[in-house]
Amino acid sequence: MFHHSSRLQYEVRVDTPDPQFAKFLQQAIGGVEGEIRVAMQYFFQAMGARGNPKYRDMLMMTATEELSHIEFLGHAVALNLEGAPVSVQEEAARDPVVHAIMGGANPRHILSSGLSAMPVNANGVPFDMSHIYASGNLAADMMANVMAESTGRVLASRLYNMTDDAGMKDMLSFLIARDTMHQQQWLAVIEDMGGMAAALPIPNSTPESHEAVEHSYYFLNTSLDEPTPHGRWTSGPSLDGKAEFHVVEGVQHGLGQKPDLGKARDDSGAQVEQMA
Amino acid sequence: MFHHSSRLQYEVRVDTPDPQFAKFLQQAIGGVEGEIRVAMQYFFQAMGARGNPKYRDMLMMTATEELSHIEFLGHAVALNLEGAPVSVQEEAARDPVVHAIMGGANPRHILSSGLSAMPVNANGVPFDMSHIYASGNLAADMMANVMAESTGRVLASRLYNMTDDAGMKDMLSFLIARDTMHQQQWLAVIEDMGGMAAALPIPNSTPESHEAVEHSYYFLNTSLDEPTPHGRWTSGPSLDGKAEFHVVEGVQHGLGQKPDLGKARDDSGAQVEQMA
Amino acid sequence: MFHHSSRLQYEVRVDTPDPQFAKFLQQAIGGVEGEIRVAMQYFFQAMGARGNPKYRDMLMMTATEELSHIEFLGHAVALNLEGAPVSVQEEAARDPVVHAIMGGANPRHILSSGLSAMPVNANGVPFDMSHIYASGNLAADMMANVMAESTGRVLASRLYNMTDDAGMKDMLSFLIARDTMHQQQWLAVIEDMGGMAAALPIPNSTPESHEAVEHSYYFLNTSLDEPTPHGRWTSGPSLDGKAEFHVVEGVQHGLGQKPDLGKARDDSGAQVEQMA
Amino acid sequence: MFHHSSRLQYEVRVDTPDPQFAKFLQQAIGGVEGEIRVAMQYFFQAMGARGNPKYRDMLMMTATEELSHIEFLGHAVALNLEGAPVSVQEEAARDPVVHAIMGGANPRHILSSGLSAMPVNANGVPFDMSHIYASGNLAADMMANVMAESTGRVLASRLYNMTDDAGMKDMLSFLIARDTMHQQQWLAVIEDMGGMAAALPIPNSTPESHEAVEHSYYFLNTSLDEPTPHGRWTSGPSLDGKAEFHVVEGVQHGLGQKPDLGKARDDSGAQVEQMA
Amino acid sequence: MFHHSSRLQYEVRVDTPDPQFAKFLQQAIGGVEGEIRVAMQYFFQAMGARGNPKYRDMLMMTATEELSHIEFLGHAVALNLEGAPVSVQEEAARDPVVHAIMGGANPRHILSSGLSAMPVNANGVPFDMSHIYASGNLAADMMANVMAESTGRVLASRLYNMTDDAGMKDMLSFLIARDTMHQQQWLAVIEDMGGMAAALPIPNSTPESHEAVEHSYYFLNTSLDEPTPHGRWTSGPSLDGKAEFHVVEGVQHGLGQKPDLGKARDDSGAQVEQMA
Amino acid sequence: MFHHSSRLQYEVRVDTPDPQFAKFLQQAIGGVEGEIRVAMQYFFQAMGARGNPKYRDMLMMTATEELSHIEFLGHAVALNLEGAPVSVQEEAARDPVVHAIMGGANPRHILSSGLSAMPVNANGVPFDMSHIYASGNLAADMMANVMAESTGRVLASRLYNMTDDAGMKDMLSFLIARDTMHQQQWLAVIEDMGGMAAALPIPNSTPESHEAVEHSYYFLNTSLDEPTPHGRWTSGPSLDGKAEFHVVEGVQHGLGQKPDLGKARDDSGAQVEQMA
Repeated sequence: MFHHSSRLQYEVRVDTPDPQFAKFLQQAIGGVEGEIRVAMQYFFQAMGARGNPKYRDMLMMTATEELSHIEFLGHAVALNLEGAPVSVQEEAARDPVVHAIMGGANPRHILSSGLSAMPVNANGVPFDMSHIYASGNLAADMMANVMAESTGRVLASRLYNMTDDAGMKDMLSFLIARDTMHQQQWLAVIEDMGGMAAALPIPNSTPESHEAVEHSYYFLNTSLDEPTPHGRWTSGPSLDGKAEFHVVEGVQHGLGQKPDLGKARDDSGAQVEQMA
Repeated sequence: MFHHSSRLQYEVRVDTPDPQFAKFLQQAIGGVEGEIRVAMQYFFQAMGARGNPKYRDMLMMTATEELSHIEFLGHAVALNLEGAPVSVQEEAARDPVVHAIMGGANPRHILSSGLSAMPVNANGVPFDMSHIYASGNLAADMMANVMAESTGRVLASRLYNMTDDAGMKDMLSFLIARDTMHQQQWLAVIEDMGGMAAALPIPNSTPESHEAVEHSYYFLNTSLDEPTPHGRWTSGPSLDGKAEFHVVEGVQHGLGQKPDLGKARDDSGAQVEQMA
Repeated sequence: MFHHSSRLQYEVRVDTPDPQFAKFLQQAIGGVEGEIRVAMQYFFQAMGARGNPKYRDMLMMTATEELSHIEFLGHAVALNLEGAPVSVQEEAARDPVVHAIMGGANPRHILSSGLSAMPVNANGVPFDMSHIYASGNLAADMMANVMAESTGRVLASRLYNMTDDAGMKDMLSFLIARDTMHQQQWLAVIEDMGGMAAALPIPNSTPESHEAVEHSYYFLNTSLDEPTPHGRWTSGPSLDGKAEFHVVEGVQHGLGQKPDLGKARDDSGAQVEQMA
Repeated sequence: MFHHSSRLQYEVRVDTPDPQFAKFLQQAIGGVEGEIRVAMQYFFQAMGARGNPKYRDMLMMTATEELSHIEFLGHAVALNLEGAPVSVQEEAARDPVVHAIMGGANPRHILSSGLSAMPVNANGVPFDMSHIYASGNLAADMMANVMAESTGRVLASRLYNMTDDAGMKDMLSFLIARDTMHQQQWLAVIEDMGGMAAALPIPNSTPESHEAVEHSYYFLNTSLDEPTPHGRWTSGPSLDGKAEFHVVEGVQHGLGQKPDLGKARDDSGAQVEQMA
Repeated sequence: MFHHSSRLQYEVRVDTPDPQFAKFLQQAIGGVEGEIRVAMQYFFQAMGARGNPKYRDMLMMTATEELSHIEFLGHAVALNLEGAPVSVQEEAARDPVVHAIMGGANPRHILSSGLSAMPVNANGVPFDMSHIYASGNLAADMMANVMAESTGRVLASRLYNMTDDAGMKDMLSFLIARDTMHQQQWLAVIEDMGGMAAALPIPNSTPESHEAVEHSYYFLNTSLDEPTPHGRWTSGPSLDGKAEFHVVEGVQHGLGQKPDLGKARDDSGAQVEQMA
Repeated sequence: MFHHSSRLQYEVRVDTPDPQFAKFLQQAIGGVEGEIRVAMQYFFQAMGARGNPKYRDMLMMTATEELSHIEFLGHAVALNLEGAPVSVQEEAARDPVVHAIMGGANPRHILSSGLSAMPVNANGVPFDMSHIYASGNLAADMMANVMAESTGRVLASRLYNMTDDAGMKDMLSFLIARDTMHQQQWLAVIEDMGGMAAALPIPNSTPESHEAVEHSYYFLNTSLDEPTPHGRWTSGPSLDGKAEFHVVEGVQHGLGQKPDLGKARDDSGAQVEQMA
């Protein structure tokens, strides 16, 4: 069960409201790299967690923290919209600088939300829940979480560079810090479960008899004219310790047949010429 | 530039067509764990790759391979739909077993595609390109790719279990194998760039002055009644080697203010009671 | 800031797991009538609330409660999926009754979530955040909330009828009860602000000079052959107490012009015939 | 069956075309507060109406009116786009003021529609029909309609403030007026059916035995540190006249169990560590 | 301006209600091949029509007809849902045949719409307005319309085959007939404007100086191993009468450069290794 | 199976990077008129092609070409983003002209992709695969393809007009040329199959007994006050050569019944007043 306390997890201060930056901040709320995504992802992963319950508890605790991140970012958006002109009669609206800024703002911050945060990204596209990955496989979920926190910290770092408001920089430095922790937290779960080599290939419960292992460890060069780009993935032991990486190159013609579906059936709504 | 050759990358054989399994297979084409996603993701990452060009080349080569995966899966869907009744006059349609199976099939395989694959998932929901992660940060992108291949191999393993058609099992064993390789390929890029510790926190280019480092290494227990779930993430050196993990617990009241936006402005479309 | 405690808000008991009912229950999680919607809607309304802070506090408290509803419904979905066949080798999968039920289940409960809840509706369509209404106008928001709780209670009542599992009926009777409260809670806010007549028309801050009041109180009969359906809306005082309802009927030809955009411009990408 | 006559329902005049305002106006066509939504919502409600046919007739008549609103708004968008530069060779395109305005315009008004209206909102996001609420319960539908007209009138009022074009203000004053009527029209249906108290709780056909009535009339304070915000919803008779409102406060620990799904099953695609 | 009359455009009779067929019929309402699409597409094309006003008038008249198609199909869905079990207590719900049918029905027909039509397709996916093509180019729009009516008639023909209800077959034979007319109507507009050759290439207003005409008339064989599939498109005069079709074959290596974006910039959120 | 070679299909040169034009170009990648759409549409049509295999081969070859179009357009977007300010500290960011341009750019080109192309349109809305039409009917598919290439060439022509960068104009002149070919290629398939008259009505396999032919050849005037707009579609032989076009005009009252669904059922979640 959830509870709430009245103070924000972190102080939000906006020295100079900036409606354009309000639009940018929306990416951190409703973008695929944002906080709704991680809050809901960890929440659904927790609800579906099977196995050692400590992982479930940890997921739920961090899901709860991420809800608090939405909350302070939402406040930051509203504070950046303070003073934005809502009427062409206003002084500000006649100011060419303000006019130019408003051209780059999200018009729905005025038209739809009345100067408040929305669950949308920096283009005004609503977040959709297809981005919540909760696979029932803990290692796959941890990879999804590392990815979410990695793109999240990339985003927060870019937002930090796109403002010179001291209050916003301070808030973003907190977000950057928490994303640092969460990246490592999810990787630490892999360590905790026995380490990356043991986790691979994910799922590690698939019987080897279900796998055409002769195709499991080669890099396929599909280029007609490029040499194979060599690296850790083309030679040496595989990361799961089970084989050696190697390369298949040269123009590969497929191992399968040329597909042919034959004629269309009567009653199938095709043209008669397809049935001949 | 892309080219095509006529044979499928891998042989597709369906011993007993099964329209319900055709619906399931759609998840591997148009699901978030599917092949359109990885093909397009690696393609866009390649197009945006900056830095050592070998990573770009590798991404493009594997993007190209994934397009071939869509192709043989698409053929597998069509073969599973052979013989599905397209008319209630047909013998098959009057068979109660067939009728029951068709109830669990995707009706659009008959109505919209005429017994062929569609770019949709197992619920018939079209794939949408918001799932293509190409962040411009190579480490974040690799995490996105590991996640895609992990959920992809989980899916392929589950599909393997959901059929007893020998042809389909053979094809899926190839997919499982290639996902094994690709999981490791993307992790090997991290190794190739200096290893996970050096890659963290992602992006590793964010100056430390942009980060509130006092918040970067603690696990936050947000529960009122659960003890901290201890593990690799609560003590010991952090995975980036820069600090020690620790825990902040107890009921945390926020570090910030109680938010208050004051009164609504005139002309803002609020109720007058909000302006008083 | 948010917190969590370990026990569910309400007991969840499933006497006989039913994967088809798991699919139905998803509507109460990720449907437009579901709990993600109300949790996020009240949360965003709270974050944007201006005026008397007691409304903000109330919204946040109920948003928090709704998060707990997601949590116990998510558990109910997982419990209904216990025992669903994940492999065609299983006994259950060969049982024709189970087979028929699985045809009506959500295949992604096996393929994508591994027998757990997802943030999708009963058709497997992910929830999207365009459904979060937080307009900055408290009365409009309350109407959105009454609507959400009304369709929510309709849904819960229908789900109650679609199961005969005693545990599920008990859980749904709790949801029905809370929806009863919440419908009235939001209407009570209107009362608290001065009552419905005073709230109308929403927004009540629009100056009368912005309104063509001669068009504000008539019902328009747009039918060629139906008499006006008389009722409270065709005569008597208007609900805002400012005028009398009346009717405009007979074939209305428009008050405006016949639209004509003239020729297409050069360089506009039209056909040359449109430019002549 | 539908018919059309050639003149717009209301005169559309644009004194000074403004491509940025054309973008804003799109919210009234293809936004969630817009006219496609209400036209389609009332149309689907009418098609599904059961009970006294006068409500069906009324819904269809107003659906028809709303189609006419789309029509004149669509013309208004096109007129606001007259003269927008479609080529960088044009005089206007070189004017810095025009250039700034075009930066805040919808580029698809040039690229995709050739200077005409589109079924999208002010961010260019297409309207989607998940927003059509037609529940089969007349009272719930009426609440959805009041909400649609309330957010619609909030939007029209904000648009009125965002232009100083006399023609546009005149057109919007008509929209504001019709939204006034329609808000009251739908509330009047509730009156007509016996009044709000009788309508509650929606659906009023749910037997009391399906409801855990001991949970139906209390406000739940989920905050750790905020006192209950008192108001009409915390004491006094409930709005359905069946009980007294009261409050449950203090830190509530849940009434249910701590959820535990146990181990993952073999063949379920989880990690082996989850099966131990 | 729109008007309505009370009778459906065509008689709707359902001899044997079939909830599964109700789900199928949804494709004709809310599918991409359905009636919402054509109604809205012709409506938006009419609103944006420039040039000879007779095309605008024709588009609006047929848009109006298509609204009437939605109406009778909506009624057909509701009639097919008559008698579907809404409670497990009902006799019908215990009937195994009914149970199997309901497994293949849309659960939201019970849960969300109360046995009525919804603006969704046969998978329950809501229609979205991105499918409305109104380009401002009359010839392109006509092609969009022919395509819509072609896929529409394919769908109607398949639905005809999927039912043996005489009433439904009769209604669908009317839809098939109107789609026959509308396919030809839109092609006739091309004739009316001077014929296909004159219309091509669309837009025919693009100056030849904007086109690299040396690339305008060859079929490009991109296969490594397939001979060119010869046909009307590989030789003979082009359909616009301006050139001869020919073929470019053999492995084509691109005419352009190998792309290289160089190093990532500081402050761009990339990894430091990408900046070296 | 797919392959790749290293050089772009066409040279991409950007003389003066323009982040606003990068946003516009996105429409040609991820817009409904763009290259992802055609690449995927031809690919899925090829996978589902039944009948003469030469059409399948041709579709696959052109699908492959379109993938190469995505590739060079993606490079063009990245080159247009070179030099865009990613930090407010940069010189460029302080330049008012740059500031104004960035207001009209896609913020996610900085925040999400790190100055690279994305699979989104000019509004930042991701492409979704519901736009892939592959009906199983070759003639319907060809119409879909002509439409895609027609709107595609309209778009490319408009983009040509919206830039004065010589490199971009050169690249777009190539796109315009290829769209010219592809429009005609798909129409040539119709010729190749026997010509348009023989193809109509699509599908031409629907038995005439499934069609209410008395409704197949009249234009329906649904206007109350407009005369029928005469043209090729109102008289003369129909385009399929089977009948004469004619007109039905005057106020048409429907041929069907007035719909009436009667009372709502118990247990259906309606209001009790609907059941009376």
